[in-house]
Amino acid sequence: MKKPTPLSGFPEWLPGDRIVEQYVLDRLRSTFELHGFASIETRAVEPLEQLLAKGETDKEIYLLRRLQADPTAAEPSAGDLGLHFDLTVPFARYVLENSGRLRFPFRRYQIQRAWRGERPQEGRYREFTQADIDVVNRGELAFHYEVELPLVVADALSGLGLPPIRIQTNNRKIAEGFYRGLEIKDVQAVLRTVDKLDKIGPARVRAALVETAGCTPAQADACLALADIASPDASFADRVRALGVTDPLLDEGLEELTRVVETAAEDAPGLLVADMRIARGLDYYTGTVYETVLTGHEDLGSICSGGRYDALATETSADGKTTSYPGVGLSVGVTRLLGRIVGRRLLTASREVPTCVLVALPNEDARRDCMRIAAALRRRGIATEVAPEASKYGKQIKFADRRGIPYVWFPQAGGGEVRDLRSGEQRPADPETWTPPEEDLRPRIVEGAV
Amino acid sequence: MKKPTPLSGFPEWLPGDRIVEQYVLDRLRSTFELHGFASIETRAVEPLEQLLAKGETDKEIYLLRRLQADPTAAEPSAGDLGLHFDLTVPFARYVLENSGRLRFPFRRYQIQRAWRGERPQEGRYREFTQADIDVVNRGELAFHYEVELPLVVADALSGLGLPPIRIQTNNRKIAEGFYRGLEIKDVQAVLRTVDKLDKIGPARVRAALVETAGCTPAQADACLALADIASPDASFADRVRALGVTDPLLDEGLEELTRVVETAAEDAPGLLVADMRIARGLDYYTGTVYETVLTGHEDLGSICSGGRYDALATETSADGKTTSYPGVGLSVGVTRLLGRIVGRRLLTASREVPTCVLVALPNEDARRDCMRIAAALRRRGIATEVAPEASKYGKQIKFADRRGIPYVWFPQAGGGEVRDLRSGEQRPADPETWTPPEEDLRPRIVEGAV
Repeated sequence: MKKPTPLSGFPEWLPGDRIVEQYVLDRLRSTFELHGFASIETRAVEPLEQLLAKGETDKEIYLLRRLQADPTAAEPSAGDLGLHFDLTVPFARYVLENSGRLRFPFRRYQIQRAWRGERPQEGRYREFTQADIDVVNRGELAFHYEVELPLVVADALSGLGLPPIRIQTNNRKIAEGFYRGLEIKDVQAVLRTVDKLDKIGPARVRAALVETAGCTPAQADACLALADIASPDASFADRVRALGVTDPLLDEGLEELTRVVETAAEDAPGLLVADMRIARGLDYYTGTVYETVLTGHEDLGSICSGGRYDALATETSADGKTTSYPGVGLSVGVTRLLGRIVGRRLLTASREVPTCVLVALPNEDARRDCMRIAAALRRRGIATEVAPEASKYGKQIKFADRRGIPYVWFPQAGGGEVRDLRSGEQRPADPETWTPPEEDLRPRIVEGAV
Repeated sequence: MKKPTPLSGFPEWLPGDRIVEQYVLDRLRSTFELHGFASIETRAVEPLEQLLAKGETDKEIYLLRRLQADPTAAEPSAGDLGLHFDLTVPFARYVLENSGRLRFPFRRYQIQRAWRGERPQEGRYREFTQADIDVVNRGELAFHYEVELPLVVADALSGLGLPPIRIQTNNRKIAEGFYRGLEIKDVQAVLRTVDKLDKIGPARVRAALVETAGCTPAQADACLALADIASPDASFADRVRALGVTDPLLDEGLEELTRVVETAAEDAPGLLVADMRIARGLDYYTGTVYETVLTGHEDLGSICSGGRYDALATETSADGKTTSYPGVGLSVGVTRLLGRIVGRRLLTASREVPTCVLVALPNEDARRDCMRIAAALRRRGIATEVAPEASKYGKQIKFADRRGIPYVWFPQAGGGEVRDLRSGEQRPADPETWTPPEEDLRPRIVEGAV
């Protein structure tokens, strides 16, 4: 077989980088659990109709087809299975499917892969891992979760050894209320157009607002003026009000966003910024929306996005009664983050194997005894392997050293001696009692390259 | 939207059962790491030619097709992407692709989902999680790994609170050498036929051996006599030799299997049984093969299978030089195991949320103070959430109790009081110092239903 080559958009990590990924995932998981979020996983597939019902139909979906299926049945149909493109749509389906067996408000986290058949580029993948938290309730969802959830994510992403994050926040009610106050007719079209600001710039957005979104030049200018407002404190609200547009929904949005920004400023100054330009492409958001940049890596785009959604999961019972399950959630783009961490060596592992001790093998007949020494060390939580072959000790030491294994155990009658490969120090030791320093037990994560 | 219904073959767990799954996965991971196996993950997809090159072509593969692709290009082609049906084939590809960047022998574990478009039934899923360990070397792979790897899996599966496992072991060289010694011509056809013993019984296997596999009646009887031999110790070898067939490959296989069985019998009596009936469907195995049953749940089939493979990963360089990467590995069928654990309530979680403490909310204005109490507890590793609303304390206590949250914190000036919901005991406590007993920190896993 020829040497296989990587598939563009389907990243894979070498063992050392996978240790960094595990470190990030473990940290996300443990922080989410500390905040009382329960883990769930959903199947990788949803019926096509489910995937298409939630907006974002411009995303390329991968459909499944069985190899031995009839190839003439080529047109996609509603019941066909496709790979999920995010974790929010499957979560909404899971909530509806299990609504009688879950307790609400339901706090869940979900760390899984998702797939999109997009053109790959830096930060965009065809297969990627997301780490989501959401709170969903039956009926009504209290506003305070819109304040709490970005703080949970900030807690999870801090302490990793990465640059600080900045969460850019907006509220859908502000733009919608503002546009309504301006008597703009096609609010969705204007939202979609303003969302292109970063891509095409204000001049072209203004032209598009007038030419295709039905705005007057004065309306277009007001929309651009709104999008230009940002502040790390509550001052944005006064600046929006100074534009002279009034609407009850606008007021509600300004009040909510002020609460989000003020709470965050007290507990985590500098973390959160109100930014009227943030829109989020998905059209299911109805309240606060979030995007997150890694300071100094703004070119990477958002590494954690989300928002409040009121109508993503709604069920209609047999007698026509409708129940809503509103929610709010954020999704960490783990693969996007890892791509940057690995690409720039922001974090590296102190070794590429979990092994803490290599038991050297004096001769092949001693393997059973060496396996017993290894078992004794493992019983006390020390990751240990026995040398692959009874080569010269120099070669066995090199085997450990190349992998970053810190200790080599030389078996002798009644125990043996253990050498710290970094200091060269070698001492008699008993496998039933010897313990390495805590920091050597597992690979350490180091900022910058080792 | 109507209530969604489950998709057959795509299992999902409720939060409490997911805690049991996490417990099993954590235990597998930590044991694999204690034995020095490094984690990798591979992409979910492989080119179709890769998936078809490794035997097992009777498995239904799911191919991917982009929703917006041309539907007239309906015939599958070699470069089409399909979801992997196991983790061994992608691992072999990963080894070849990264051979210059990995260190050999390479010990890796891999815990991921795989997909097969089969008809679902108990223990058979369309989407399932596997937990694999393999050791692969460049050139030659020492035999001792065939002894070591089943012991690693046994270590990982013990101590979970499940019934003991029994690993049924055979060696491909025994059957092949035996058939060769009998002068059977189509060894593969005979292997495939004998593999059906459990399904169709000895009489029909005997008939098929004669009618379709080209055996004489005497050869067929000898094959059935071989398949009938099993022993928990090395005595199987004498019984095979007593059948009077001689062949060098047969001798090699008997010697190897004897070493596997004898080593295991010393360290873990009763764990391993030599069984001449075990063949394993996949045709890439070349040495020891393994199947594993959970005692008392033999009807479930094998929960962990694998074997030695010498030719799964072979690369040919530009100058025509061939390098082999022989390996040995076992794969735990996590979803099959979980399906039984969940279905029979063999293990359950003591609570369905990670939360250890619910901070009660006296009124909505106190939320910020309550969040600070929660943060203080979390800083010391105590999973805490604040009550969703300032309802009557009785209702808040019920909220905690229903989820199995063991403690409720009642905030007061200067700290508060904490109540153990099980004993009803309530005491003054300081969020900076109060600590619950270790066993309450996380959900416990209990044998049988709670």
